Amino acid sequence: MLDFIFQPKSIAVIGASTTKGKLGHDILNNIKKFGYSGPVYPVNPKARTILGYKTYKSVKSVKGPIDVALIIVPASIVNAVLKECGEKKIKAVVIISAGFKEMGGDGVKREEEIKRTAIKYGIKIIGPNCLGFINPHKDLNASFASGMPNKGNVGFVSQSGAMAVAMLDWAYNSQVGFSKVITVGNKAGISELELLDYLGRDKDTKVIAMYLESIIDGREFMQRAAKVTRKKPVIVLKAGRSEYGQKAVSSHTGSLAGSDAAVDAAFRQCGVIRAGNVEDLFDLCKGFSMEPLPDGPNTCIVTNAGGPGIMASDALADTNLKLADLDESTKKKLKKNLPEAASVQNPVDIIGDAMFDRYKTALETVIDDPGVDSILTILTPQTMTEEDETARHVAKLSHTTNKPLLTSFMGGEDANSGRQILNHMDIPNYEYPWRAIYTLDKMYDAFLIKQKKGLAYYTAKHKKINKDPKYFQLKTIDAEKILLQYGIPVEKSKLITDPKKIDEFPVAMKIASRDIVHKMASGGIKINIHNIHQARIAYKEIVRDTKKPAKKRELDGILVQPMMDKGEEIIIGMKRDPHFGPVILFGLGGSFVEVLKDISLRIAPFNRPEAMDMIKQVASYEIIKDYDTKLIADTLVKVSHMAMDYEDITEMDINPMIVYKKGGKVVDVRMLYK
Amino acid sequence: MLDFIFQPKSIAVIGASTTKGKLGHDILNNIKKFGYSGPVYPVNPKARTILGYKTYKSVKSVKGPIDVALIIVPASIVNAVLKECGEKKIKAVVIISAGFKEMGGDGVKREEEIKRTAIKYGIKIIGPNCLGFINPHKDLNASFASGMPNKGNVGFVSQSGAMAVAMLDWAYNSQVGFSKVITVGNKAGISELELLDYLGRDKDTKVIAMYLESIIDGREFMQRAAKVTRKKPVIVLKAGRSEYGQKAVSSHTGSLAGSDAAVDAAFRQCGVIRAGNVEDLFDLCKGFSMEPLPDGPNTCIVTNAGGPGIMASDALADTNLKLADLDESTKKKLKKNLPEAASVQNPVDIIGDAMFDRYKTALETVIDDPGVDSILTILTPQTMTEEDETARHVAKLSHTTNKPLLTSFMGGEDANSGRQILNHMDIPNYEYPWRAIYTLDKMYDAFLIKQKKGLAYYTAKHKKINKDPKYFQLKTIDAEKILLQYGIPVEKSKLITDPKKIDEFPVAMKIASRDIVHKMASGGIKINIHNIHQARIAYKEIVRDTKKPAKKRELDGILVQPMMDKGEEIIIGMKRDPHFGPVILFGLGGSFVEVLKDISLRIAPFNRPEAMDMIKQVASYEIIKDYDTKLIADTLVKVSHMAMDYEDITEMDINPMIVYKKGGKVVDVRMLYK
Repeated sequence: MLDFIFQPKSIAVIGASTTKGKLGHDILNNIKKFGYSGPVYPVNPKARTILGYKTYKSVKSVKGPIDVALIIVPASIVNAVLKECGEKKIKAVVIISAGFKEMGGDGVKREEEIKRTAIKYGIKIIGPNCLGFINPHKDLNASFASGMPNKGNVGFVSQSGAMAVAMLDWAYNSQVGFSKVITVGNKAGISELELLDYLGRDKDTKVIAMYLESIIDGREFMQRAAKVTRKKPVIVLKAGRSEYGQKAVSSHTGSLAGSDAAVDAAFRQCGVIRAGNVEDLFDLCKGFSMEPLPDGPNTCIVTNAGGPGIMASDALADTNLKLADLDESTKKKLKKNLPEAASVQNPVDIIGDAMFDRYKTALETVIDDPGVDSILTILTPQTMTEEDETARHVAKLSHTTNKPLLTSFMGGEDANSGRQILNHMDIPNYEYPWRAIYTLDKMYDAFLIKQKKGLAYYTAKHKKINKDPKYFQLKTIDAEKILLQYGIPVEKSKLITDPKKIDEFPVAMKIASRDIVHKMASGGIKINIHNIHQARIAYKEIVRDTKKPAKKRELDGILVQPMMDKGEEIIIGMKRDPHFGPVILFGLGGSFVEVLKDISLRIAPFNRPEAMDMIKQVASYEIIKDYDTKLIADTLVKVSHMAMDYEDITEMDINPMIVYKKGGKVVDVRMLYK
Repeated sequence: MLDFIFQPKSIAVIGASTTKGKLGHDILNNIKKFGYSGPVYPVNPKARTILGYKTYKSVKSVKGPIDVALIIVPASIVNAVLKECGEKKIKAVVIISAGFKEMGGDGVKREEEIKRTAIKYGIKIIGPNCLGFINPHKDLNASFASGMPNKGNVGFVSQSGAMAVAMLDWAYNSQVGFSKVITVGNKAGISELELLDYLGRDKDTKVIAMYLESIIDGREFMQRAAKVTRKKPVIVLKAGRSEYGQKAVSSHTGSLAGSDAAVDAAFRQCGVIRAGNVEDLFDLCKGFSMEPLPDGPNTCIVTNAGGPGIMASDALADTNLKLADLDESTKKKLKKNLPEAASVQNPVDIIGDAMFDRYKTALETVIDDPGVDSILTILTPQTMTEEDETARHVAKLSHTTNKPLLTSFMGGEDANSGRQILNHMDIPNYEYPWRAIYTLDKMYDAFLIKQKKGLAYYTAKHKKINKDPKYFQLKTIDAEKILLQYGIPVEKSKLITDPKKIDEFPVAMKIASRDIVHKMASGGIKINIHNIHQARIAYKEIVRDTKKPAKKRELDGILVQPMMDKGEEIIIGMKRDPHFGPVILFGLGGSFVEVLKDISLRIAPFNRPEAMDMIKQVASYEIIKDYDTKLIADTLVKVSHMAMDYEDITEMDINPMIVYKKGGKVVDVRMLYK
């Protein structure tokens, strides 16, 4: 547990300064100002006291024990200071100083140096190049962010200091409260990995939110996140989803950027909710931290104005949520209790002159409807509207039900006090109704994720291939053999050097050469060959066309396969992501993959339900669903195991596998190595 | 011109009330409070004075002329009051009262009644069931919205009163200023149509923004909007884009909902920018009203922190914008003037300790780069940051260039005064950088739209078809003839009743029956028939399979077509939208249309450039681009003319047309009527 860092009994501030505006002054001032109650030891070689605290020449001259030291000295002397901390037996340091890996050059060396020192003395490092941390529940602001965020239950980890400052401001506006705010900077020591575990166990934390520019170890992150997300929602804003963004990330933190599609797949598998931007992040935090998850998609909207109801419905149509079909008895009850002009269809429009009691009646009625899984209450301030009283009753009702109830009290000044009441009573309120819908949708996602069994485990068998250094790929026949080892059905090829050896027609013929990657494009495939005459011509043509290039190509002969009946063609691929390891791709053959990029990805290994989810994820599922999806799922799982076992295979393409209503076979496969 | 309404020389308030909280009181109070300077005549049968104004028993007892009367009396007596207004020669009334079409039943009748009265007396009506209007430039708040919006150049029209109140609040927060705010309610008289013209000419209005729940006359709207958008941006938030939303619209305003895809197509054609929600609407208003349009996609980001730069780049990757490739000379100049740790790649990161002069240098340099079309300046408040001074210099620089410059001064309190400076100096600022990117992207869209030639004109020839009431569709051969009239290439069918009549092979055979809509699904199509023997079998099978159903079907014989060479199949369709008239559909054949809904739509008529735009809009353009797109565009234009001429044809499907690298022909077509 890292409580000794985030709830320290004593703090040293190394590089404390007497000059207002300097970090070494402002951090010490923050510690004092917000009321941290433990002993504080500023270290400064010249001053006697700073901000009323007695100063020390070095941590070594401090008598008592020190839980955590904040380091704000020039990068060049951080390592020396770190050694002193080690000698003083300080267990953790927060290195605020910049000038390390993010600078490149000497900075990289300096970072390696402090890492070694930390290991030698067994010191935990946060940073360098970070903002510090804040624990609102302990009145401790050990950072240079001005202000103290609201107390709450969101544990927030940020990789970027500059973003953290802006984010705390936004969080303040959006009324999100925090259990911890931790900035990790260059992550030389403690990273999102340990913090996932820590915040996962932290009793003050109900929701974990992270802003990450890189992920230190993708597979380890998945393993830990998969456990934490069973208990608490983990919401991550991963910057650098675009190629553009990735360029900026690289020059910003010097870390290798991973492929973003792999990140999406990984998050999905381990149950992490991905936020698109900061606005999303805090809107989600608000919903997840205050309300239970909806256990179905059916949402009921109660509003006192038509327009916002329409806007919310429009937003809802873009999500997995549905407008709940209200039960006849619900409608009857609403009709009885609402004025004639009201709409008892969902969205329930209780019209402009609704006072608090009409909201109460309508909400009580729809909450009771078993077909309603979640509720959005919209209020626009109008002449008769009782904002405060309505807020109080909405909150009370919300506390009596385990269905999530979100609100959108819209407009400016008029509804301000109502909004404050909602906030004090822990009811999430959104400025715009569609933000509430966005949040509800992600909460429903999280509910579905919780139903999943978690990550699949698989013990890799570390199998070897014969890597002939003259080539970059396996022979087709050898690749087929590997698939067959896993029980994947393959339409086997027979290698011939004479067309007379073909004993059954019709067949397809394809070139056997390890110098050719795309057989089709090189003129190396002929299909629908019905007799020996056609076979002779085909043989000649293949040999001629594939010999065209100046470069001499290996030619083992021609592979012959029986022609398969027409079915649906699918593609299964594998590549290795530098952060997440083997990634498996699924898609329908033909233009769907190439033009429309209608594919789904998963990190290997995975199990059958995950594979089914993968198949259902593509838009062309509408086509593939009539074929043997059981076989496809099975094949995907087996390929994921193969990818784990054969670490030397860097890339693989099964293209195509032909599937039928029942059964199917791999027609062609290539496996590359490096 | 409607200036006599929105800049009236005198106002009557019919139904003025002495009771605070009543609409008739609050509106009068608004007129007084914000300083309207013309004569005001409250009409109230009992009170002597209200709010210091002398009251009148009726408008007829007012001596002077009255430009506009606000009516706030019960719905049942509105018509009587309207007649008095007519007799008093009042030219316009704003009917605030509700209880008309939106109520259904008697309300509908009442609305018809007031329409008739208005026509009789030549009175312009705004409303009923509206909020009134506001003219900030004339200090006139003739509505029951509390508060006076900022003066500015956005002319805002809202169909929903309740939304207008909330929207004015949001607009206030987002610092948008208005030339006019007009709520139109049920649109019994003045609608978005007249207001498009009026605001298009209004010199105080630079940007027109509308919140619409329905569009009164789609084609008329397009005609007028196409003219206005050549001069001023028109941004429309059209609610009810989802089916859900449409349901709510219908029950809300009683107006028929149009198909939303047609709205999208129509807006695109007439150059209207569509906002997704209220947030979008005001973010767009801000950018469009303060900055010129970018004349290219290349955006440069200047930031003092990496994180926000990444987030902006991520957002940019989802748009049509590009991160500008900075010129080598630009990079050199930046390198010379910025600290070593800065990034001179786009996003240009001038790092955390940047003071105003570094912003100035960097911005001057990138503005000078001819490869940069627009600039986003990001500021996060850090220790050394000079928010105010930076704001002033950014604004000054912006005023010296015709490239749009948007800003995102992030964070809370710290940058507040900087933001205020930007606002006073007319520089659009966004809380989140991605909102600025969203806005820039739409501004670039608007630039592209301005390059287009405008709507196509076509004089419909009003041609007739022979509508045999026994059937619902034309004979295939007759439908083919219609296409041929327009010079559309068709692979003509020959009707036979005996296979012997086929003189050339291979052929396709299809049933000729007006009782069958889907020939293929009914077993009515056989292809690849190579000889008379196969033809005989096919003939028999078609007759047998299509006669299967119990219901007797017409059978004219069998249509025979030569088999066409393999090419790419496309689909061209037509349907009639209740609001916009004939809508033409384009898509690639096969699964693209059915499963992936990868289609584009346009309202007929349109010209060749619009048709090319339509072809490029589909994702499968990557496939179709290698075929004869000129022929496809030509066919689309001709079909759009056909749709205009043949008003009786309610639906048409060309499915498929086979196209080649050069040339192509329609293979099958069906035309339905009612």
